[in-house]
Amino acid sequence: MTQEQLADIYRAYLACLNRQDWKALGDHVDDAVEHNGRPLGLAGYRDMLVQDFAAIPDLRFAAAILVSQPPRLAARLAFDCSPKGTFLGLAVNGRRVTFAENVFYEFAGAKIVSVWSVIDKAAVEAQL
Amino acid sequence: MTQEQLADIYRAYLACLNRQDWKALGDHVDDAVEHNGRPLGLAGYRDMLVQDFAAIPDLRFAAAILVSQPPRLAARLAFDCSPKGTFLGLAVNGRRVTFAENVFYEFAGAKIVSVWSVIDKAAVEAQL
Repeated sequence: MTQEQLADIYRAYLACLNRQDWKALGDHVDDAVEHNGRPLGLAGYRDMLVQDFAAIPDLRFAAAILVSQPPRLAARLAFDCSPKGTFLGLAVNGRRVTFAENVFYEFAGAKIVSVWSVIDKAAVEAQL
Repeated sequence: MTQEQLADIYRAYLACLNRQDWKALGDHVDDAVEHNGRPLGLAGYRDMLVQDFAAIPDLRFAAAILVSQPPRLAARLAFDCSPKGTFLGLAVNGRRVTFAENVFYEFAGAKIVSVWSVIDKAAVEAQL
């Protein structure tokens, strides 16, 4: 797989998230997916995303930076959204905040099997 | 430049940091370097690192994950260290903590020109 092919596969995953197309999530995410070392599995991963969209109705995934070296890819995701209540333990309460998530993925074929994510909580705190 | 060449250049930068070899920092970091959008320049970048080692005497840089796609590289740095006082606004006070930094670099030739870093503050909080 080439760098650009993996980047395209990843962009299709982000588009699936933005459509909230949970039936298709299994095309992009492996049954045995792990997130920050937790063995969520596909169902647990889907639940996490469903909860994210419930807590942040205007959530949208957009990559500001992509670095692709199959079978791994790193993305800097840029968020501009309004979490309804508590977010990352912070009382955001509907305020609009911008922040980044720097995240690594490992793929098995076209599917994500491991995710290592860090969200910029300090940036959110600084806006409250 | 190949992926592996850029990864080697990056590993040499980490080795420079771990030696606290500030005279050599300019071999790895551009005069006009930016860090999270701040135009620090080489002197400001060096000052930031000197302060990091003063605040965390056992600081050591080690990459758990490297993703290389010239001219960009992403690293997940794994820290296991004991910040002396306040760290990321948290009263760590010498306790040993482990946490990750997910960070992107853009290179001009062999030198870092831009850095986009997120440190896992929530992980540190959870250990206090």
